[in-house]
Amino acid sequence: MKINISERAFKSPASAIRKLVPLADKAKKKGIKVYHLNIGQPDMATPKPIINAIKKFSRDTLEYAPSEGIHETIAAWQKFYHDKSVKFDQSEIIVTSGGSEGLILAFLTVTDPGDELIVFEPFYTSYAIMAAMGNIVLKALPTEVETGYHFPPKVMIEKAISRKTRGIVLCNPNNPTGTMYTSQEVRMIADIALKHNLFIISDETYQEIVFDDKKVLPFMSFTKLHNQLIVADSVSKRFNSCGARIGCVASKNKEVMAAIMRFAQARLSVATVDQLALIPVLINSRQYTEQVKKNYKKRRDMVVSELRKIKGVSFVVPEGAFYIMPRIPVDDSDKFAEFLLNDFSDHRETVMIAPATGFYKNPQKGKDKIRIAYVLSEEKLQRAIRLLGMALEKYNRKK
Amino acid sequence: MKINISERAFKSPASAIRKLVPLADKAKKKGIKVYHLNIGQPDMATPKPIINAIKKFSRDTLEYAPSEGIHETIAAWQKFYHDKSVKFDQSEIIVTSGGSEGLILAFLTVTDPGDELIVFEPFYTSYAIMAAMGNIVLKALPTEVETGYHFPPKVMIEKAISRKTRGIVLCNPNNPTGTMYTSQEVRMIADIALKHNLFIISDETYQEIVFDDKKVLPFMSFTKLHNQLIVADSVSKRFNSCGARIGCVASKNKEVMAAIMRFAQARLSVATVDQLALIPVLINSRQYTEQVKKNYKKRRDMVVSELRKIKGVSFVVPEGAFYIMPRIPVDDSDKFAEFLLNDFSDHRETVMIAPATGFYKNPQKGKDKIRIAYVLSEEKLQRAIRLLGMALEKYNRKK
Repeated sequence: MKINISERAFKSPASAIRKLVPLADKAKKKGIKVYHLNIGQPDMATPKPIINAIKKFSRDTLEYAPSEGIHETIAAWQKFYHDKSVKFDQSEIIVTSGGSEGLILAFLTVTDPGDELIVFEPFYTSYAIMAAMGNIVLKALPTEVETGYHFPPKVMIEKAISRKTRGIVLCNPNNPTGTMYTSQEVRMIADIALKHNLFIISDETYQEIVFDDKKVLPFMSFTKLHNQLIVADSVSKRFNSCGARIGCVASKNKEVMAAIMRFAQARLSVATVDQLALIPVLINSRQYTEQVKKNYKKRRDMVVSELRKIKGVSFVVPEGAFYIMPRIPVDDSDKFAEFLLNDFSDHRETVMIAPATGFYKNPQKGKDKIRIAYVLSEEKLQRAIRLLGMALEKYNRKK
Repeated sequence: MKINISERAFKSPASAIRKLVPLADKAKKKGIKVYHLNIGQPDMATPKPIINAIKKFSRDTLEYAPSEGIHETIAAWQKFYHDKSVKFDQSEIIVTSGGSEGLILAFLTVTDPGDELIVFEPFYTSYAIMAAMGNIVLKALPTEVETGYHFPPKVMIEKAISRKTRGIVLCNPNNPTGTMYTSQEVRMIADIALKHNLFIISDETYQEIVFDDKKVLPFMSFTKLHNQLIVADSVSKRFNSCGARIGCVASKNKEVMAAIMRFAQARLSVATVDQLALIPVLINSRQYTEQVKKNYKKRRDMVVSELRKIKGVSFVVPEGAFYIMPRIPVDDSDKFAEFLLNDFSDHRETVMIAPATGFYKNPQKGKDKIRIAYVLSEEKLQRAIRLLGMALEKYNRKK
């Protein structure tokens, strides 16, 4: 007798970012060097204080941490926010296993099966998987490459709100587009949440990585909104420590925090060594984030200047994170991504990108776009984007 | 306007094991020493190779691990099973953040909202929280202290199966009762799963910790069952490394593993340092588990002999894990647990236990029982159980 998995498991999408990995492995086995622009895994060294803290771990027993997090780690997150003029009590912060866990817990805390969350398309793939896990309907509002993926007009967003809508999920600056939403846009979302009594789930993983002297207006600056706001955060990108899996979820809504705590108890705790290792940089974040920002600014400029040289590629210069999602002259970005790994190389080198299809609810809309994560040195990025240009020409000639 | 959390978040129970923590903190602030028998956090030292591997971490960048786990960590889990004569391919193992994450992913993979999983009551509290997260109905079949919490007759289990039942969840030896299910019982569950086309979610966290020369019959020994079996496992207890948060989920059902992998991609990866740190003990597990087993055997014997001296306490000697759930002469185990922390001490010492109420769907059934985790030295256990005896007398005299 055949035994079936659940419908939610069956329907859960695969990660757009990771599904091409087997093809990349195959290319590497053939001796081809692959420039990875497909995943937000920065190449920069992890700050020394983190590595040193790991090496200095000196307990005899690797014990469970408290479910809410190690006290000192919570205090360190509090200090991190304080340094950004955002005030959370320690009881308003729970340490999570990366930003991802915080998002999952927040999703489950505000929705029941069949409830809706508003997201802006293209959106971070994991949102769709998390929605599948919790039987949540994502209402995806379109944003367009021509307008730099900024928000649609207020009236369009309000029209998407139904009786079932429980919240708005967004990431500023945005993954996958690199768009920094303006203060006006942030205010508009706050207004909508207040008017329609919705939660805002604010993914702030990239918040300090913004260029050209811009600065993100945090939702926490709207006092009226505090009871409706859940912040999900992560050390991964700003401290080059993706593999530590340390994040946090923070909210001034006591009922929300109590519920997240109940859920968090089911997974007992977050890894002890990693929680301890992040303390030194969280309490002294500025010096790291300033440098990280400078590095990505130079990298963005390199990618932008190289992309401009490729015929048929269009985009608005992104202002944050380390992503860009240009339109490129191809019929099918999935096929093009496979072509890059299977059929193309120049001097035994190729490039791996994320087809944009996985960032859309309707994959069709992503067929003419790709996401580039500019997480390599400028020199490598120059070579990688030039490889992309060559591959585009070859791909289109082939047809 | 008041904004509400979701019904599933509202209804999620708090962990029975952790909810008394604030009272224990208060007692400690008053200068009272608390013997912790409330949580399965062993006091034994973590094996040196784990601590040494952490200290030797030498990468410059703390990168994401693959979503399925670091290749060498998967290979190490495979070796661990191989040494128990259980054969999994590497593609049949995904590294998880503790056993808990594996259980959550398995629950979501086999059920849709409203579907049922059969558990045996008293059951591990986290099952109820995980069920709340996924809107799963737990069908709790009673087991009794008088019969050592062994399974009810087959006919009773089969009677509980409905059109909505998707699987049976169990832990052998069991948390919270310490019961080791016999080969006959394991075979009975396998038969039921085969006959009714159900999944078995087998929590094997304590599998080597069994006494008196007994041995658990693994579900993997039934070849016919392979397509219906999901193993959730953890390094926490057998290697005294709860804070590492390393576990795995393993199944020969390809569809199950593909679905778990899709879900796992949403959380990106498990902490890199911890995955690497566990490799040396996973590939050479016997020497650790043998010693661990010996230690707990002595501790169980101490607890049992001390409990026997207390009037009105009844139990069947448990054969595994490091738990015992005796019936004790109290009106309300929650009140008694609070009494221990708030109102009782002898020479400025007291003991913390887990009231059994949290291990039952209907808390009423646990009012006359407590769970003891014997995770302290024999000497401390002797003192702790004697404190329990004194407290029982005082508690009942007070009334």
